[in-house]
Amino acid sequence: MGYILTQKRIAILGAGPSGLAQLRAFEAAELAGVKNMPEIVCYEKQNDIGGMWNYTWRTGLDKNGEPVHGSMYRYLWSNGPKECLEFADYSFDEHFDRSIPSYPPREVLKDYIMGRIDKRAIFKYIRFQSPARWITYDDNRQKFTVTVMNHKSDEQETEEFDYVIVATGHFSTPNMPYFEGLEQFPGRVLHAHDFRDALEFKDAELLLIGGSYSAEDIGTQCYKYGAKSVTISYRSTALGFDWPEGIEERPLLTRLEGNIAHFIDGTTKKFDAIIMCTGYLFHFPFLPDELRLQTHNCLYPDNLYKGIFFQSNPKLIYLGMQDQYFTFNMFDAQAWYARDVILNKIHIPDAAQRLQDIQDWLARQEALETADESIDFQAQYVRDLIDATDYPDFPIEKQAELFKAWLRDKEEGIMEFRNKSYRSTITGTMASSLPKPWLDIKDDSLEGFMALKFLAPKE
Amino acid sequence: MGYILTQKRIAILGAGPSGLAQLRAFEAAELAGVKNMPEIVCYEKQNDIGGMWNYTWRTGLDKNGEPVHGSMYRYLWSNGPKECLEFADYSFDEHFDRSIPSYPPREVLKDYIMGRIDKRAIFKYIRFQSPARWITYDDNRQKFTVTVMNHKSDEQETEEFDYVIVATGHFSTPNMPYFEGLEQFPGRVLHAHDFRDALEFKDAELLLIGGSYSAEDIGTQCYKYGAKSVTISYRSTALGFDWPEGIEERPLLTRLEGNIAHFIDGTTKKFDAIIMCTGYLFHFPFLPDELRLQTHNCLYPDNLYKGIFFQSNPKLIYLGMQDQYFTFNMFDAQAWYARDVILNKIHIPDAAQRLQDIQDWLARQEALETADESIDFQAQYVRDLIDATDYPDFPIEKQAELFKAWLRDKEEGIMEFRNKSYRSTITGTMASSLPKPWLDIKDDSLEGFMALKFLAPKE
Repeated sequence: MGYILTQKRIAILGAGPSGLAQLRAFEAAELAGVKNMPEIVCYEKQNDIGGMWNYTWRTGLDKNGEPVHGSMYRYLWSNGPKECLEFADYSFDEHFDRSIPSYPPREVLKDYIMGRIDKRAIFKYIRFQSPARWITYDDNRQKFTVTVMNHKSDEQETEEFDYVIVATGHFSTPNMPYFEGLEQFPGRVLHAHDFRDALEFKDAELLLIGGSYSAEDIGTQCYKYGAKSVTISYRSTALGFDWPEGIEERPLLTRLEGNIAHFIDGTTKKFDAIIMCTGYLFHFPFLPDELRLQTHNCLYPDNLYKGIFFQSNPKLIYLGMQDQYFTFNMFDAQAWYARDVILNKIHIPDAAQRLQDIQDWLARQEALETADESIDFQAQYVRDLIDATDYPDFPIEKQAELFKAWLRDKEEGIMEFRNKSYRSTITGTMASSLPKPWLDIKDDSLEGFMALKFLAPKE
Repeated sequence: MGYILTQKRIAILGAGPSGLAQLRAFEAAELAGVKNMPEIVCYEKQNDIGGMWNYTWRTGLDKNGEPVHGSMYRYLWSNGPKECLEFADYSFDEHFDRSIPSYPPREVLKDYIMGRIDKRAIFKYIRFQSPARWITYDDNRQKFTVTVMNHKSDEQETEEFDYVIVATGHFSTPNMPYFEGLEQFPGRVLHAHDFRDALEFKDAELLLIGGSYSAEDIGTQCYKYGAKSVTISYRSTALGFDWPEGIEERPLLTRLEGNIAHFIDGTTKKFDAIIMCTGYLFHFPFLPDELRLQTHNCLYPDNLYKGIFFQSNPKLIYLGMQDQYFTFNMFDAQAWYARDVILNKIHIPDAAQRLQDIQDWLARQEALETADESIDFQAQYVRDLIDATDYPDFPIEKQAELFKAWLRDKEEGIMEFRNKSYRSTITGTMASSLPKPWLDIKDDSLEGFMALKFLAPKE
């Protein structure tokens, strides 16, 4: 092997938003003239960068027999304002050279996110079609041994690393509950993870189970593309939006009898298909217990110092394991912090101090009562990270206020909030408006969307 | 650990037909009074025994986030005569106490297969919901280290073994090719592995891609349950059966344009859903390269002495990795042979002799030209195994003749062959007949089927 033995070696698992943030963080350091950079290998299961943003028609297992990573669906539009995920060092204005509306569809948003990636610089680190198989850590030698399956060569690769950065996401492995009678239901039963094309459910009577983002977004999308009816069944709390005729909420499903669903309020309804919008599992089949994060979807997972360093072995770093208001720029904040620890610019304290810090954040999380408080909490977390590195400062708190406005706009009209516009916290530009409502724009391809005549921003 | 250190330890991966055969083989030895039996642990991913025969409504990933094992579909009927898989020591007559028809539906056949399992005796070996994570072999100590994920405890278990028996099957991981335009197809695209309930495709125009058992069986089943049309697209050779109005074959799909399929003969047709009947991958994500069988679906996989012992490490045993005419009793033959090697009743020769034996069989496989020859080849393979152990002899060659008759009956009428009856090679009993054609029997539950008034056997 050609590398100098004193050079650190870093494995990054995943080249989605988090993994790419980590690659960019190191790339930025190199450009800034940092010497003795570590050697980096990024292992990616898919055949391209982008993680969740790689739309695929495949469901279940991919062409290599590996679980499909993506939960992306064909007609997805951003469900939050683009101004809440805008990068300080790469604005929407810079990318599109014009003002675009606040809620872009999938391909448009992906175009922006990928626009700042210098593919030539980044790709050299990445080994595609190489899912992690098994990782061990040798306490004496302080090295990780990482084995991946390289499906291009059909051979495994085993290498040693000083740090492992887990950037594999946590919206890929469905949580799929059972309801009595599901095995006899004569239509399709799928998890939101496997939802792809809303047109499959045109004219169908659809049952969605779940009370969070997936249910509201898949429900409204199927309504948009011609589902005959959408019924959302919730366990404890209704989403409570002002639904149009054709979408309704009912309390929990208790059982199915053929194609008839029985709900806990005693009502029944016939359905053609069932979509489980019941969330995701944290799933790391490549990690032994002593390295495996065990958590649930929350704003501050336990056992991660600064939200990223595994408490019992801080050379193991987890990116993006939080529930997310902030996304891309939070991943950046984490990646820059992780980089500076690896480069010895930031020294992380001993286990007791780390534990204290974790417990402080957990106590603050425990005290959160409202969505607005949760947004502020995550903003403070990002602020805490950003202030410790040279990552370009950005108006985190202003973006937090936009998130709060977004929540209120959704309350005001779940079918209309995507017609709203917000002002960029980075450039001050006001977003332009859609020429017709989101509900009426069916061609949401990059070309189709960018060919729309956006209405000039209302300044 | 309570076991005696000189006692051998055996890990069996999977409690489906092959793994159960292995457990029964050891159980039979114990009942026969064999002393110093090895300690056996059987790890099973699912929550019950039966492997592929555990019907599940789930697709993609299971409740633990593991790939769903089963490719079983709801209305499956045996596609070969039950007389070809009848056990010498447990006849259909013994199980059902009456003559039943030759092609039973899924639940009926499962009832028979499971009927001879002494659950109390077998279950004590099995750790359910425990998929294998990673296996290594230490050359010096001659031990395997097996790590599994116990989803019941949410903790991994790592133990050492002298032998590992891989009985995880090879019809679980879909081979899913890409065709241009699939990502824009506005209906469901699935692999046969994810096919469950034919009623989902009632009134649909269905495209099936593939030219083997899955295509013919799913195609005829969907026709039976009301698909508007079934089109089977083949790569090289048409199935060539005498299809009824509503089922047709076309040469290979070249591309999709929206919901329009273009075939290589220049024809086009509109479809509502696409089912890929394109076979399966051999997938052992828990095995490092040096232990991993790399093969394709054939009657004699390379690198397996006697079709089961891994050539470079014969303490690693693979069951049921062949393409299968013979099934359950072939697995028995393999399991009894493997058992006798482990118990030192059979001594396997050195590597060079094993290689020679493998090469002899491969040469014979190479020379096979017809389906009848293939059936005889597999019968000879089973005979070779059976003759070396105390497994009860059974009329393998007569069952082979039944397979040949079955092929001819399919040729004669792909929609009618399941109405045929055959004579048991074990008891001599002639099967009774269905009171109406298979095509007209929609309730194929165990209760529904057994309530039918079967027509007395035509002796």
